[in-house]
Amino acid sequence: MEFTVDQIARMLDGIIEGNGSEKIRTLKKIQEATKGSIAFLSNPKYEKYIYTSDASAIIVGEEFEPKHSLKTTLIRVNDPYLSFTILLEEYHRFLSFQKTGVESPSFMGENSTTGDDIYRGAFSYIGDNVQIGNNVKIYPQTYIGDQVQIGDNTILHSGVRIYSKCIIGSNCVLHAGAVVGSDGFGYAPQKDGSYKTIPQLGNVVIGDFVHLGANTTIDCATLEGDCTRVGEGTKLDNLVQLGHNVSIGKHTVIASQAGISGSTKIGDYCLIGGQAGFAGHLVLDNHTSVGAQAGVSKNTKKEGEKLLGSFAIDLRNYLNSYAIFKKLPELNKRLKELEEKIVNLPTV
Amino acid sequence: MEFTVDQIARMLDGIIEGNGSEKIRTLKKIQEATKGSIAFLSNPKYEKYIYTSDASAIIVGEEFEPKHSLKTTLIRVNDPYLSFTILLEEYHRFLSFQKTGVESPSFMGENSTTGDDIYRGAFSYIGDNVQIGNNVKIYPQTYIGDQVQIGDNTILHSGVRIYSKCIIGSNCVLHAGAVVGSDGFGYAPQKDGSYKTIPQLGNVVIGDFVHLGANTTIDCATLEGDCTRVGEGTKLDNLVQLGHNVSIGKHTVIASQAGISGSTKIGDYCLIGGQAGFAGHLVLDNHTSVGAQAGVSKNTKKEGEKLLGSFAIDLRNYLNSYAIFKKLPELNKRLKELEEKIVNLPTV
Amino acid sequence: MEFTVDQIARMLDGIIEGNGSEKIRTLKKIQEATKGSIAFLSNPKYEKYIYTSDASAIIVGEEFEPKHSLKTTLIRVNDPYLSFTILLEEYHRFLSFQKTGVESPSFMGENSTTGDDIYRGAFSYIGDNVQIGNNVKIYPQTYIGDQVQIGDNTILHSGVRIYSKCIIGSNCVLHAGAVVGSDGFGYAPQKDGSYKTIPQLGNVVIGDFVHLGANTTIDCATLEGDCTRVGEGTKLDNLVQLGHNVSIGKHTVIASQAGISGSTKIGDYCLIGGQAGFAGHLVLDNHTSVGAQAGVSKNTKKEGEKLLGSFAIDLRNYLNSYAIFKKLPELNKRLKELEEKIVNLPTV
Repeated sequence: MEFTVDQIARMLDGIIEGNGSEKIRTLKKIQEATKGSIAFLSNPKYEKYIYTSDASAIIVGEEFEPKHSLKTTLIRVNDPYLSFTILLEEYHRFLSFQKTGVESPSFMGENSTTGDDIYRGAFSYIGDNVQIGNNVKIYPQTYIGDQVQIGDNTILHSGVRIYSKCIIGSNCVLHAGAVVGSDGFGYAPQKDGSYKTIPQLGNVVIGDFVHLGANTTIDCATLEGDCTRVGEGTKLDNLVQLGHNVSIGKHTVIASQAGISGSTKIGDYCLIGGQAGFAGHLVLDNHTSVGAQAGVSKNTKKEGEKLLGSFAIDLRNYLNSYAIFKKLPELNKRLKELEEKIVNLPTV
Repeated sequence: MEFTVDQIARMLDGIIEGNGSEKIRTLKKIQEATKGSIAFLSNPKYEKYIYTSDASAIIVGEEFEPKHSLKTTLIRVNDPYLSFTILLEEYHRFLSFQKTGVESPSFMGENSTTGDDIYRGAFSYIGDNVQIGNNVKIYPQTYIGDQVQIGDNTILHSGVRIYSKCIIGSNCVLHAGAVVGSDGFGYAPQKDGSYKTIPQLGNVVIGDFVHLGANTTIDCATLEGDCTRVGEGTKLDNLVQLGHNVSIGKHTVIASQAGISGSTKIGDYCLIGGQAGFAGHLVLDNHTSVGAQAGVSKNTKKEGEKLLGSFAIDLRNYLNSYAIFKKLPELNKRLKELEEKIVNLPTV
Repeated sequence: MEFTVDQIARMLDGIIEGNGSEKIRTLKKIQEATKGSIAFLSNPKYEKYIYTSDASAIIVGEEFEPKHSLKTTLIRVNDPYLSFTILLEEYHRFLSFQKTGVESPSFMGENSTTGDDIYRGAFSYIGDNVQIGNNVKIYPQTYIGDQVQIGDNTILHSGVRIYSKCIIGSNCVLHAGAVVGSDGFGYAPQKDGSYKTIPQLGNVVIGDFVHLGANTTIDCATLEGDCTRVGEGTKLDNLVQLGHNVSIGKHTVIASQAGISGSTKIGDYCLIGGQAGFAGHLVLDNHTSVGAQAGVSKNTKKEGEKLLGSFAIDLRNYLNSYAIFKKLPELNKRLKELEEKIVNLPTV
């Protein structure tokens, strides 16, 4: 990345004081900023750094009045922190989407199409009848099965595996090693104690703006025509597991190593803690909050419940019970003392 | 897949009423069936759909008597649901094994052999002295180390990794990203607090009809000649972990994210819940049932035990204790009230 | 591997009795040793095997006096068990580092350098501006992003993924499917309930002699210039998760499926049990010990604490409380009996 201070000021709707032709290549904290970088000053606690900074530019508030002379160029904006955040995102977007072209060797089957500005890394594999949108970045060694569809601006990091017929939305990020569409865990017990495999013929449908963490796994639905679903804007951390026919709503966040058993439905705007587990066939309402390591075994009754414990119960109740749990030896002792006192009382 | 109704009727030992030359390409529920698909009618609740269905064929019972005229061809069988299941399995098998041939580029080392009807996807890697049976399907980007043996009809999905010397049975399915044979977690503590690596020289032996879920990991045994073992017909869900020298019996089912520490032996016909954990060097008898999130720290004493909790205890006991746990604040209050009453009693 | 008994005796500083030109290809237990293998005798319990052994050589103590005639060659050393261990390690090292050369096709970007004795397996990918030391073994289908640095003697097993800018020390072993440098799980909640991605621009720094288990995931730090850190000699088992900005000290051992949330710092010489979970932003002192499935939610107060339970408390306290937990139904019954007795007492 290389921008001039002028270009950045225009992007932020800011006013330059100093040299607009300076080149910016990176973003830094004000106390660490060097030539070629841009920083920001929002908290007055850090003001002292601005007077000695080698930064090529520093974003400051409109009302900022320097108390000493400055070596650096200023960009004055309404809200320096917000402006820096915007810049950070632009920078991140730039880094994320800078790869283009097709590295060799890579594999693409028959009747598959890709849009503009695509990146297909070396050793990536695209099956037959695949449809891939514009500006999709397919990192090396990624696998995309037959008939998969992928929306615009989606990034598949190295080693992502998408089984055939799955559908991935636009503006998604799938991290390395994530697996989408593996067979659901369905087996019919036989009389002799062995298991017969129940064919898993459905797919997975991932909405727009979804993030899947590294080595996360999502099974396909059982029946053809059915899908395991992840709603728009939902974020899954690393090593999360979704069983077959699971449905996750919109803008729900699931922390690392949580596991959702088959056919469970989680609503919109939920927060699921790390290593939480869910039994199958549950329905969790919108805005449910589940603490880390909780084991959810029942439906919620209304929106906004907060759950904790294994089995999960109301958060407040769990905390109250656990507070006493920690004192159980003392409780037991008190009970014993009472029993002894009672024995010593005159009987009726 | 494309079969005629004639071919399907013969497969199911059924009798056709209608057009036996109709082409069938897929299987659907009766309420969703369209031209080119086959459905079944077992539950009378769904009978109404048969009279308007566009399905190219519908499987019905021998005794079925239509109340109205039909557009669709019928296949009469003894048990429509069972027949449909057989068809579903055939369809699934067809889909699973349809890939054949060697895509380019793929890699095969020296002295390695493969059987008939093999599929070797692009970017798959086979080391030296590997023996691979008939009808094995090796999806793209799969890794098979030196001296590995793989039985007939086994499917390795994309990105499976099998370390050298491991042995995989026939009719197995290994899902994407599963790792077989990584080093056991063995380190000898040194006087200075650091750790020396204990060489891990054994292998993993996987029986026939075993399924390994996506991103599941199985470590090799420590000593050369020893193995970590998964018995015939056993099914492991996604993200399961088996440590070195673990032994899992036959027809045991282990749900997602469960972890078994080194040298633990689990018997035949066991059911292990999701996120359950096992200490090392345990022995679990046949038919043991372990609930989700349980933490097993002791051997079982007999077959058929049911365990729950962390530490795991008898299921019934855990449920009884947890029922009181939820009332601990109330219990504490009752105890306090008693204490106060006693204080107020006349002393002896 | 093939050594003569002479070569091995010199390596162990031992004295030969018998044929020094015998060829050794593998190491075995004394009761299983065959021609071409070497074994050791330390425990007198196993002495009987030495008289019938076909081993090409057996390592014995300096003071060993055979009671019968022997077929095998002896190597006399000070400590037979230690000598065998040394041999085992040499053998393991030999096996681990025997691959060399560049298999085809493999990919290397611009301005990247590799040292001597390197192995680059087929379908491995090295990006631009990567620096790789001597004797590094990069197994097939491994991904190394731009600007990554890797020290000498490090082994990357098949399917390891290292995101750009990460730094891996020397003498490390990364097992199959391990992911280093995926985006941290950082999202800013918006007023409409959706989430904005917080760009993750830092990297991961892994010290020397670190082992990462199969399918383990480590996120990069949030800010450019910051890192998620794993200290020298630390060992992570399979399926472990480290969030962004986590810092793990030196010679710490983390068992399988444990998860550490963002910004938590764990000290040196700690022991973390399997499936343990840690909240974010904690500080754990050196020599902390955390039991399996514990849920750590608070800082430690001093070195050497032992924790268990979810939420984690002092190990001893947890065990005492859990012992009573198992008797809660009985406790409840005793309390009820007391309540009834009290009711029957004469009131004051």
